[in-house]
Amino acid sequence: MTSQIINSDCYPVTPLTRVRRLANLASYDTNTVYSVLDAAYVCHVAFTVEGQPHCIPTAHWRHGNTLYIHGSFGSRLLQALINGASAVVTVTLLDGLVFARSAFNHSMNYRSVVIYGQFSSIEVPAQKIELLRAFMERLAPGRWDEIRQPTENELNATTLLAMPIEEAVAKISSGPPKDDLADCAWPVWAGVLPIKQDFAAPQGCSDLPAGIALPNYFPRGAITGGNES
Amino acid sequence: MTSQIINSDCYPVTPLTRVRRLANLASYDTNTVYSVLDAAYVCHVAFTVEGQPHCIPTAHWRHGNTLYIHGSFGSRLLQALINGASAVVTVTLLDGLVFARSAFNHSMNYRSVVIYGQFSSIEVPAQKIELLRAFMERLAPGRWDEIRQPTENELNATTLLAMPIEEAVAKISSGPPKDDLADCAWPVWAGVLPIKQDFAAPQGCSDLPAGIALPNYFPRGAITGGNES
Repeated sequence: MTSQIINSDCYPVTPLTRVRRLANLASYDTNTVYSVLDAAYVCHVAFTVEGQPHCIPTAHWRHGNTLYIHGSFGSRLLQALINGASAVVTVTLLDGLVFARSAFNHSMNYRSVVIYGQFSSIEVPAQKIELLRAFMERLAPGRWDEIRQPTENELNATTLLAMPIEEAVAKISSGPPKDDLADCAWPVWAGVLPIKQDFAAPQGCSDLPAGIALPNYFPRGAITGGNES
Repeated sequence: MTSQIINSDCYPVTPLTRVRRLANLASYDTNTVYSVLDAAYVCHVAFTVEGQPHCIPTAHWRHGNTLYIHGSFGSRLLQALINGASAVVTVTLLDGLVFARSAFNHSMNYRSVVIYGQFSSIEVPAQKIELLRAFMERLAPGRWDEIRQPTENELNATTLLAMPIEEAVAKISSGPPKDDLADCAWPVWAGVLPIKQDFAAPQGCSDLPAGIALPNYFPRGAITGGNES
């Protein structure tokens, strides 16, 4: 069900994934790529239809060396992906604003991954169910067995797309500003304003029947705490 | 310097921006589009070079009815944009995970904007300076006058691109899960797990000269607190 990286812990450097700007921030290490993909809930999928680029945000999850997305079967854009359009998936986590002494050296701290490839559709209902369960396990372990399962119609209405991760690169910027040595005595504060993403307290539906308690499977606290310290 | 929306507070609905899926979540209202753009620090810019789609995350800012990005003049991808490639800019803010009674109705709460258009390069140095100042004003009002100003070489090395916002749509999903009526008695917790983004305490460089105090212009606290309540 998932493609495998054989005999290597790194993705190959290709003309598409070779980072030319700030190449020292690039990583082709599979675990680094996975860690960024797994820390984010939303990716951006870009592709071209009749010369026109499109870019849609959508939830993603990873299982082994494959990235999955899902959506409505009726979506024109998903249909383009099913039909084999070249695609690029970008995941970005913003970790902080970086304030340097010079205007020029201001920047941001971030973790990003770019994957070039093609999606294909998962059609076997049992496979779809298992992959949707894996997605739910990531969000709320154990919840899948508690909820009303998909009907055949609902499953048919859900397009599930898989992209093997074969041409990918992570780019990670962290730490304090990189000021020119000559600027370091400039009389201005310099440093990082970290950005963190957290879960807030769960908000139950107003019509929850009596006796339905808040489950304990939800993730708590920081999603991303930045990578400044 | 900025394009204007004349005699209208809404962007036109075009073949590219007409939302077909969950059309009730779409908004063409300029202020709604602006509010999403202004709440985010990073956008994704997608475009096609020789048939290959690309999607790069980058900082953005808005001034009037124009979206700006900047980057290194040497970047191949920015060069494609300078040369007039059709582009699409997507901004996405994730506000929460939405847990329904049925697997099928699980979703996410988010605010997104998609803008279709083309970038053009700002070449006049004085204009570039004013736009970079506006960007800094957004991040840290007053800081521009404190920092070491760009040299001519630095300014030449900085590509500044502008896209008039003419074909744009916002899509906003909020509130509790939309369960089928027949599912509402299903014995499982249902509701929203809100996601919020905050600034943490500023982290000054370890080599700050004595007497440099933390400025008071940094934004504090919540960037996005979700739109659940």
